[in-house]
Amino acid sequence: MTTTTCTSDARAATHEITTELAAYATHSRFSELPKRVQKEATRAFLNWIGCVLGGCHDPAVEAAVLAVAETGGAYQASVIGHELRSDVGSAAFINCMSSSALAYDDTHLPTVTHPTGPVAAALFALSEKQPVTGEEFLNALVVGIEIECRMSNVLLLPPSQSNLGFFVTGLTGPIGTAAAVGRLLHLDEARMRSAIGLGAAQAAGFRSTHGSMAAAFVPAHAARSGYSAALLASKGFTCSDAALEAPKGFIDVFANVADPSHAVEGLGQRFEMLSNAYKPYPCGIVIHPVLDACLEIAASLEPGIEPSHIALRVHPLALTLTDRPSPKDPFEAQISLQHWAAVSLVHRAVGLRYLQQDCIDSASVSALRKRVSAIADPAMQRDEAVAEVTITGGRVLRAHIVHARGSVERPMSDDELDAKFEAQALHVLTEDLTTRLRHLCRDLSSLENVGRDIASIWA
Amino acid sequence: MTTTTCTSDARAATHEITTELAAYATHSRFSELPKRVQKEATRAFLNWIGCVLGGCHDPAVEAAVLAVAETGGAYQASVIGHELRSDVGSAAFINCMSSSALAYDDTHLPTVTHPTGPVAAALFALSEKQPVTGEEFLNALVVGIEIECRMSNVLLLPPSQSNLGFFVTGLTGPIGTAAAVGRLLHLDEARMRSAIGLGAAQAAGFRSTHGSMAAAFVPAHAARSGYSAALLASKGFTCSDAALEAPKGFIDVFANVADPSHAVEGLGQRFEMLSNAYKPYPCGIVIHPVLDACLEIAASLEPGIEPSHIALRVHPLALTLTDRPSPKDPFEAQISLQHWAAVSLVHRAVGLRYLQQDCIDSASVSALRKRVSAIADPAMQRDEAVAEVTITGGRVLRAHIVHARGSVERPMSDDELDAKFEAQALHVLTEDLTTRLRHLCRDLSSLENVGRDIASIWA
Repeated sequence: MTTTTCTSDARAATHEITTELAAYATHSRFSELPKRVQKEATRAFLNWIGCVLGGCHDPAVEAAVLAVAETGGAYQASVIGHELRSDVGSAAFINCMSSSALAYDDTHLPTVTHPTGPVAAALFALSEKQPVTGEEFLNALVVGIEIECRMSNVLLLPPSQSNLGFFVTGLTGPIGTAAAVGRLLHLDEARMRSAIGLGAAQAAGFRSTHGSMAAAFVPAHAARSGYSAALLASKGFTCSDAALEAPKGFIDVFANVADPSHAVEGLGQRFEMLSNAYKPYPCGIVIHPVLDACLEIAASLEPGIEPSHIALRVHPLALTLTDRPSPKDPFEAQISLQHWAAVSLVHRAVGLRYLQQDCIDSASVSALRKRVSAIADPAMQRDEAVAEVTITGGRVLRAHIVHARGSVERPMSDDELDAKFEAQALHVLTEDLTTRLRHLCRDLSSLENVGRDIASIWA
Repeated sequence: MTTTTCTSDARAATHEITTELAAYATHSRFSELPKRVQKEATRAFLNWIGCVLGGCHDPAVEAAVLAVAETGGAYQASVIGHELRSDVGSAAFINCMSSSALAYDDTHLPTVTHPTGPVAAALFALSEKQPVTGEEFLNALVVGIEIECRMSNVLLLPPSQSNLGFFVTGLTGPIGTAAAVGRLLHLDEARMRSAIGLGAAQAAGFRSTHGSMAAAFVPAHAARSGYSAALLASKGFTCSDAALEAPKGFIDVFANVADPSHAVEGLGQRFEMLSNAYKPYPCGIVIHPVLDACLEIAASLEPGIEPSHIALRVHPLALTLTDRPSPKDPFEAQISLQHWAAVSLVHRAVGLRYLQQDCIDSASVSALRKRVSAIADPAMQRDEAVAEVTITGGRVLRAHIVHARGSVERPMSDDELDAKFEAQALHVLTEDLTTRLRHLCRDLSSLENVGRDIASIWA
């Protein structure tokens, strides 16, 4: 431990990344963003608000709303999908929980960070308290997502020795969120360094909470923590100016060994946002290539033909994160490779309805779940999978997905994203309001007042 | 990393510590506590509220109060020393920050956890919202401190491989606080397990924030996080039932290797609270034996005799945590071994006034600071130090402190604690109110309604 910590210190000393990231956050402008990044930020926001509307009545959110109602904050922002209004931090907390609750949110593929939730939730709630233009909003969103994903890279890309049990969105979400909110609060560089440091000081979360409501709690907490960090910094609250890279700082404790240049190399030129992907399926992203493969096989099956065994070959991370052969409830089913493989072949479709308890407990799905075997193949890409399905009579059907739908190489089209948005928004909005909201989101960069204009949909 | 994690999992599997701690928290009773523990809980509370009053106008607290005022929570609890009232979580946040701001709070010596701050702050704020008897309050305080300190033991006692850069109060404070608040909210065992897990999911903080306002932010955040965990659990929000010991859980990510039996062995029989100590000096506790030694030497010096060099031999942790030869501001001076050694010989006294900028910058103190040499001696105890002071003419005076004042072996007496309390309370209260508050705290176990009775002092 001592040796590796020293290595980390030595490397970290070569980059003052807290300072560099704070300077970037303070001075970034929408007009200087590449058009492709501007557009991707808009897509990220549309996907996010769709997930908020889809998840806002999840049991986790309903319980959390009761807790927030009891604290009674100022009526600054919408708790989306609920009558309640609350202070910015609490609204950010709940709205991010809504967007995370169904595991349908976006994913920075190199690190499995879910970047937009904490950042967008805090920015949106703040934009209801103070006027924020569409361009300012999107610029801050990019700032937050870049810093969040770059810090995730520091923690997870070589030579990091981070414990994979940490829930990376909970670690880096508060940092990116603090920077993004700090941008809208017009912090100077010194206060931005404090905001980033105070965000890092709230880094929290581990993956054993997956399979419970707390899986959505960790990103939600990140949203609230990041907002709190920037708000404190705006009042003159200080933090170490090198909280990220100092010995006994963020990188030291969470990565042991790391290359801090991941945080700053090509900053403002090369965008991690372009490695962000949207989920076509409401489950852990590492399961997605398996579902593409199984659905391809399912589509070729004649009616009445039943699968008797599913053999999968997947990237090792898919098993590390989602090897749950006997999920007992929707939380566990959401991140069960075996559940979804079985569902895709029993029902020949994948969707939110297959997360309900009666589906999880059904004889057909649970029987096939037991006959799923999966092996980890380090030679595979994360968005790659091979499925071999044995059917009646012993014949084996095979599908090999090289890039999953919703991956960077095979991104969801605008139309697919719109369809995903609408299916979720219609849970709580009329068809007319859903369409109006979709147009507002697609035109986000031209809005004069993001909070006022969008909140008018449910006001 | 993989190997050590496996070891941790194997050990953890032998104890269901989340379940065992939750059962303890749910069923503990004041009447079953040893008298010595009941009394120590009262002393811990008196010391805590004194530190709140002494620190409540620290610049960190003033800045944080501005931030809390902007969120505008319900008027549930006192922000002590300020006009503002706020929701329980925010009041817990500020009041714990006040008690931590001057590094004058208590310390669980085996782990350098500062246990009372987060737990007492959350309990006290909640006791203003709902009636809580003195016995209930003290019992919950013991529950919280025991669980917090026992989890610190898991992280820091052998065979742990925890990174010492983590700020342990920030990691275990939310767990103990969640359990303590959960006790007052009358959670059943299942909800108590969730509260403990949600507390653990907010574990946060690293030591590079020392030397800035964020050093007081980390325990303050722990207080708010722990309250939030218990509040959510009371509304039915769930967490993994094995969040502490599961693979990819709290112990796995924060200790790598650990012995979870530290958490539960002798629970309710052997009390970590009895290893909790109060500080006679407003600085990092590892500096204290040095100050005892230097003050002993200073007391023997005739007027006009000047020290020219200070040679110290200390436990290695003293250097790890407080080796700061050139502190630039009060935050750094608070945890500078060299600063305090110099102060104790230049001014022949130690106290809050020597944390002011003019003292830090004074020629006499800064000159002597440069002539402090310190070596780490692993053979020394944590509360042991040797000082050798060279004075005019080359003579060397030596003092060897075997147990520092305020250590478990040489605890502060009730009178010393009262005097420490009064010196701090008089910053904000009249002499009469200070005396009344001291009596209320000393009689805490007999109060009918802790929040009402104590808050009447400043109402």
